[in-house]
Amino acid sequence: MGKIHLRHLYQAIPDAVLVAVSDRFYERDKFVEEYPGIAFSNDSDEVLAQPEIDAVVICTPTSTHAELIEKALEAGKHIFCEKPLDLSLSVTIDLLKKAEKRGVKLMIGFNRRFDPDFSKARDSVTKNVIGDIQVIKITNRDPDLPPVGFIEHSGGMFMDFSIHDFDMARYISGKEVREVYARGMAFIDKRVEEAGDIDTCLINLVFEDDTYALIDNSRRAVYGYDQRIEIFGDKGMIAVENNLYNQNVIYTQSSISQALPLNNFSERYETSYLLELKGFVNALVKDAEFPILDKDIISATAVAYAARKSLKENRPVLVSEIMDEW
Amino acid sequence: MGKIHLRHLYQAIPDAVLVAVSDRFYERDKFVEEYPGIAFSNDSDEVLAQPEIDAVVICTPTSTHAELIEKALEAGKHIFCEKPLDLSLSVTIDLLKKAEKRGVKLMIGFNRRFDPDFSKARDSVTKNVIGDIQVIKITNRDPDLPPVGFIEHSGGMFMDFSIHDFDMARYISGKEVREVYARGMAFIDKRVEEAGDIDTCLINLVFEDDTYALIDNSRRAVYGYDQRIEIFGDKGMIAVENNLYNQNVIYTQSSISQALPLNNFSERYETSYLLELKGFVNALVKDAEFPILDKDIISATAVAYAARKSLKENRPVLVSEIMDEW
Amino acid sequence: MGKIHLRHLYQAIPDAVLVAVSDRFYERDKFVEEYPGIAFSNDSDEVLAQPEIDAVVICTPTSTHAELIEKALEAGKHIFCEKPLDLSLSVTIDLLKKAEKRGVKLMIGFNRRFDPDFSKARDSVTKNVIGDIQVIKITNRDPDLPPVGFIEHSGGMFMDFSIHDFDMARYISGKEVREVYARGMAFIDKRVEEAGDIDTCLINLVFEDDTYALIDNSRRAVYGYDQRIEIFGDKGMIAVENNLYNQNVIYTQSSISQALPLNNFSERYETSYLLELKGFVNALVKDAEFPILDKDIISATAVAYAARKSLKENRPVLVSEIMDEW
Amino acid sequence: MGKIHLRHLYQAIPDAVLVAVSDRFYERDKFVEEYPGIAFSNDSDEVLAQPEIDAVVICTPTSTHAELIEKALEAGKHIFCEKPLDLSLSVTIDLLKKAEKRGVKLMIGFNRRFDPDFSKARDSVTKNVIGDIQVIKITNRDPDLPPVGFIEHSGGMFMDFSIHDFDMARYISGKEVREVYARGMAFIDKRVEEAGDIDTCLINLVFEDDTYALIDNSRRAVYGYDQRIEIFGDKGMIAVENNLYNQNVIYTQSSISQALPLNNFSERYETSYLLELKGFVNALVKDAEFPILDKDIISATAVAYAARKSLKENRPVLVSEIMDEW
Repeated sequence: MGKIHLRHLYQAIPDAVLVAVSDRFYERDKFVEEYPGIAFSNDSDEVLAQPEIDAVVICTPTSTHAELIEKALEAGKHIFCEKPLDLSLSVTIDLLKKAEKRGVKLMIGFNRRFDPDFSKARDSVTKNVIGDIQVIKITNRDPDLPPVGFIEHSGGMFMDFSIHDFDMARYISGKEVREVYARGMAFIDKRVEEAGDIDTCLINLVFEDDTYALIDNSRRAVYGYDQRIEIFGDKGMIAVENNLYNQNVIYTQSSISQALPLNNFSERYETSYLLELKGFVNALVKDAEFPILDKDIISATAVAYAARKSLKENRPVLVSEIMDEW
Repeated sequence: MGKIHLRHLYQAIPDAVLVAVSDRFYERDKFVEEYPGIAFSNDSDEVLAQPEIDAVVICTPTSTHAELIEKALEAGKHIFCEKPLDLSLSVTIDLLKKAEKRGVKLMIGFNRRFDPDFSKARDSVTKNVIGDIQVIKITNRDPDLPPVGFIEHSGGMFMDFSIHDFDMARYISGKEVREVYARGMAFIDKRVEEAGDIDTCLINLVFEDDTYALIDNSRRAVYGYDQRIEIFGDKGMIAVENNLYNQNVIYTQSSISQALPLNNFSERYETSYLLELKGFVNALVKDAEFPILDKDIISATAVAYAARKSLKENRPVLVSEIMDEW
Repeated sequence: MGKIHLRHLYQAIPDAVLVAVSDRFYERDKFVEEYPGIAFSNDSDEVLAQPEIDAVVICTPTSTHAELIEKALEAGKHIFCEKPLDLSLSVTIDLLKKAEKRGVKLMIGFNRRFDPDFSKARDSVTKNVIGDIQVIKITNRDPDLPPVGFIEHSGGMFMDFSIHDFDMARYISGKEVREVYARGMAFIDKRVEEAGDIDTCLINLVFEDDTYALIDNSRRAVYGYDQRIEIFGDKGMIAVENNLYNQNVIYTQSSISQALPLNNFSERYETSYLLELKGFVNALVKDAEFPILDKDIISATAVAYAARKSLKENRPVLVSEIMDEW
Repeated sequence: MGKIHLRHLYQAIPDAVLVAVSDRFYERDKFVEEYPGIAFSNDSDEVLAQPEIDAVVICTPTSTHAELIEKALEAGKHIFCEKPLDLSLSVTIDLLKKAEKRGVKLMIGFNRRFDPDFSKARDSVTKNVIGDIQVIKITNRDPDLPPVGFIEHSGGMFMDFSIHDFDMARYISGKEVREVYARGMAFIDKRVEEAGDIDTCLINLVFEDDTYALIDNSRRAVYGYDQRIEIFGDKGMIAVENNLYNQNVIYTQSSISQALPLNNFSERYETSYLLELKGFVNALVKDAEFPILDKDIISATAVAYAARKSLKENRPVLVSEIMDEW
């Protein structure tokens, strides 16, 4: 993710000037050769100390987010941070409050909102093309399981994976989630279960107006990265289909076949990552509202908490049960 | 439905000889003109009294099924009856037991199993084309709400409508359902709610092996009869798409557009109704096992009961909770 | 073809009463068992002699058409005859004239006009959905080469095969063809070339108003029966796509695949054969104009002649060159 | 086109160092602001005079190509020039010969070869996925007519527009064209005809091995930029379909509709322009063979000549008739 954002900042976002990059492990010489003219340090403090820097982009493991954000807040830098902000909802809320107090802007990366296909679908909904939404169905399946070591520190499937879909459901519907019912299993790898996690799940969301979303997730679809949404309203339906590798259709004696879906997030969501960061930069430059707000971050995180509780207790859980604890 | 079966028996099922038809309200003269050579009566007892009749097809309102079936059983006729056998699971079980005792065969019409697209999908599953099934998603939406008067006597959405999908989930997976969680609302018409029913619902099924099915139902999709299934396995996915009115694609300045899905059950499932009745006749002629068995009827009905209970109590319900009551 | 028409007349065309069938080789006993109540003879004269017969359907080899039609004309029977009427344009014109003189109606089977997809496309053209037509593209490919023995007596590819497309081009456009340029080769089987024929061809038609049609034909597409049309107008395009065996889409590690096109004419054009014969019967019963007229038969045949000449001389040929010879 | 290549050279082709840009009309100040660090001149001679420049990219009107290329040749610069090199085949051949004599590499921009979908199709052909090619069908339609003033100096539809398809036919098949038959009309605008040109055409190509290509071109498809290819072989078919704006499908009461094809060449062929220029740079850096060779340029131009002659004389024209004149 860091490389993607770095490339975009270096080349493709004219309103931002890339000043310095910090990575604990990358070799300075290699970096300098690749990105001539950009300062580099293995120590992020050095970067934060530079007064001409207005904003920082944080793409580190989730466990390091809180500390880095605290430092950036103290340095008065605006912050773009990869999702999730933190595995703890209380820490998340706390960080957002601190940012507000310091007058620093903090945005997290729910990139899929910026995907042209999904934002086009959201536009159609807003323009009332399909009337009042009754059911949203989100299919989100990864092409393959990440290393089990990653899963162990991921915060669990809901927080690491489904959280994109919780945000998407809120983004498409423009509504808050009231209730969550989640089922899940480790179908793909025993070690996922041993790590206390799941790799496949179904989640029913009930919005505040009694309409629904249905999410189905899997960490392994052998045919590739399956990213689809269906939005069913009283005047019609919008189906966002997969982006395929190419538009070639091959007819043979045995079948008519097409190319597979784009197979990884960097290919599939390339444009969304760029537009997301442009949205961050643009909001800073124009002092405008962020395209992703504090409540988006908090709500999606709370839904993930509720899903976790629902799975554990095998019952529908109100998001207010989660929020009431804070 | 009666007309569809009549036409098929009259014309298209060589192994069956259509002897007599009974309808309480149809005019004899009109019938005789339309179906020369076939006996007709407004009194079903007259038909049941004919000794050369081996089997009967019952397509009457659900509330009359039990009485007619009892009579047919006494007359020793084999019976094909439209779904549901009865709104009461205990009556259903009772009728099936009586039929068994009398040596009479009784089959009910879960026609969609016979749809060429769905049975092809089942074939592919059986041939292990997509490996072990993890999630089945069934979308079943009617083009429009039936008269509210019909809904009032329908037994409710799960028993009248979703029961097809409960059967389909069992048919595709070859597994029994262990647990049901259902959500539903009356989005389309207030009068549905007043009648104590819903018109839109989502149902999660958990099979005995912890795999899932997701069903979403609506009594009104403005774009037509939406009949799709997705079967997700560890080696791939099968998607059964809608059957459209034609294969014409029209490109204009504003869009690329296709024809709508076949808009009603008699068009969409024409072939399945024929194959279903052929299956019934064939099993009788060859004294073979029916393509739909007692346990199929009982299980789908029990799942409908469980869904009703789940909706009422907003909690997952075990099918065994239902079965244990009998 | 005879069997298809026989089944339709026996079962599915209420306005026609099937009286008698003649086939030189079929066994009477077998026929009587299959079609109880229908007279049968190995001698067509016996059938033609029956006074209660108003019309006959001729499905014999092309070489026998002229003689049978002459006999039917003399017997005063209306005639439906499979295409082509005759390999000779002069004989064709002569037969049509004789029929007119005797007040007998003679229609030939350009069944594809009755295909629901193609007639829907024609409707859209008539309703000006795509404006003025500029180019029509017809792809017509058979799944496999017929026996070379058949090809030898077929009248050649243009008369036997492409003639459907010549009729389709006239049907879709509602225009007469002015000029023809044809290229062709025997790619599939050497013996086709030895028989003096081709198995693959491209034909450019220029209509009377300088607009175009492009036809490409092959006697063997390994992926099945490829039957597509594109109609390009100044306000849009209509593409009639293939009818596939089923709507199942299978996603695996290697591809997304669909079922093949319906593989033979009896499957693909089942409905068109029924509607064609219904059109014939309906025109007789209502004394209305036939859906296929003399000029349709003559024009399509003349275009086939022009194509043959064009191929031979490798130059564009005016249809008037052909017509002027008669 | 100049802007596209400039952007790519500035940002996206690491192996090339952009030194200087010349444009007769662009303002220096504006340029310098947009492309800091790059030299700019309104006089191309100044650019050609710079010794550290190894290669130039020429994107000027066709009428200026010959003079600029001559100058670049004298300056010893390698040259990438937009198609066509020149409207005159003799000038084209002459320039290529001069380049060869001077040891300068000259490549022209048949960018579509580099389009990922088309090159994937070419790959599949090479890998024998569909066996021996029998027929190639190319549909190439622009979304709208260019200004008539442009058409007047374009060299005519075959040289300006269809030449892409002549190259594509050769690229996909790997074969030389032997014979050409072309039909064409001005359907869209009377002024095109007055300018002595056409706006719609059909071209049949016969390759050296008697197989075919069919090209249909229009300067205006109201539904957008229609860029499709079908390749029919004895083992199957490859269809390259259009690239649509998005993957959203909208279902309403009246239709199922998709987004239109990408509407202009800069969107549709963005990637191909980049890969084309990368191919040029790569061949220079590695001293490797160009992906587009002299014979590609000469052959496509000769086919355009043959098409022009065919249209004029309404007869098939051998490409050798054209080549023999030089």
